[in-house]
Amino acid sequence: MKIITISREFGSGGRELGKRLADALGFAYYDREIITAVAQKISLDEDYVEKTLENGIPRSFSFSFGRTFSFPDVAQQNYTKLLIAQQQFISDIAKKGENFVIVGRGADVILEDYEPLNIFIYAQMESKIKRCRERAPEEESLTDRELSRKIKQVDSGRAVHRQLLTKDGWGEKESYHLCINTTDTSIKSLIPSVAAFANSWFDKK
Amino acid sequence: MKIITISREFGSGGRELGKRLADALGFAYYDREIITAVAQKISLDEDYVEKTLENGIPRSFSFSFGRTFSFPDVAQQNYTKLLIAQQQFISDIAKKGENFVIVGRGADVILEDYEPLNIFIYAQMESKIKRCRERAPEEESLTDRELSRKIKQVDSGRAVHRQLLTKDGWGEKESYHLCINTTDTSIKSLIPSVAAFANSWFDKK
Repeated sequence: MKIITISREFGSGGRELGKRLADALGFAYYDREIITAVAQKISLDEDYVEKTLENGIPRSFSFSFGRTFSFPDVAQQNYTKLLIAQQQFISDIAKKGENFVIVGRGADVILEDYEPLNIFIYAQMESKIKRCRERAPEEESLTDRELSRKIKQVDSGRAVHRQLLTKDGWGEKESYHLCINTTDTSIKSLIPSVAAFANSWFDKK
Repeated sequence: MKIITISREFGSGGRELGKRLADALGFAYYDREIITAVAQKISLDEDYVEKTLENGIPRSFSFSFGRTFSFPDVAQQNYTKLLIAQQQFISDIAKKGENFVIVGRGADVILEDYEPLNIFIYAQMESKIKRCRERAPEEESLTDRELSRKIKQVDSGRAVHRQLLTKDGWGEKESYHLCINTTDTSIKSLIPSVAAFANSWFDKK
């Protein structure tokens, strides 16, 4: 079984790369169906689940337990439930034995026993802002500065999520096998390179 | 003309990767001949040139000019001459028009107008220590701690060298197109993957 995990900075084109890479390799691709499955399992609205898993909860969460004993509020309880259900679902995918690509969700950590190829996708801020604007015209009302802040916030949530699963290291090259810079590069044009790398990488194992 | 620059952490196997990659792609490979040419040009001993270019000079150098006006000593003068001669030689290589791989020496910055594929090679410290021991048995007398310190010193010299050529950014993934983790991986086994990536990368241009 061959598994590729894609971690990525918001706006770097990581999701598009994951989907296209899966298509190029003939692998399954997991993304939206994870949200659906998690939402069904814990009877919460899909949009709420997606938003909570995407944005996480305030950074203080990951530290509050260490300092004082406090009862987590409903948002925290839900977030914890979501993460556990998501982790379970991702583990279940791997048990099917098919080759697949999965984007985000801490899959590199959750699936480490399966020795996936872990890729990190990143880009310069200017390039990420440009990509966000092309992808989501509703963000046109944001200034570059606001968009940059949003990008950093989303990435900060991803870093916290990783902290909950393992030690620090989100976005640090040491946490991945391969890191790919998508600055000023079309994702489509990168696919043959990444697919070729992935094929040889699995061959050597 | 296709140019690949390899920057690397000491002990990560970057030089071996560069040589093998050049062989696999049928590219020229530049390494030792740069030292020879630089030494001849400024009439200094090759070993001295190699050592100075490899180890750099104390970190204070890069800051001393900014603070007080001081006459550089002979070591600093020689280092500066070496860097300039090396930069000249690397530019001359590119003018030949052949495809080549070059390891280290700030070639990613010096050759940026030629739009090279810039790769960074890194690994976990334990892996680098192991590789150093296999490669240079004379380092057997060093403890792991001493070897780790040596590795960090060499890398720090490389970072200073980059600072002299451009802004900071040595070893930061943002400075490269592709970063490859060689922890617990034989360099030889990586070559088909990297060669395949490089071939497709140049094709898309």
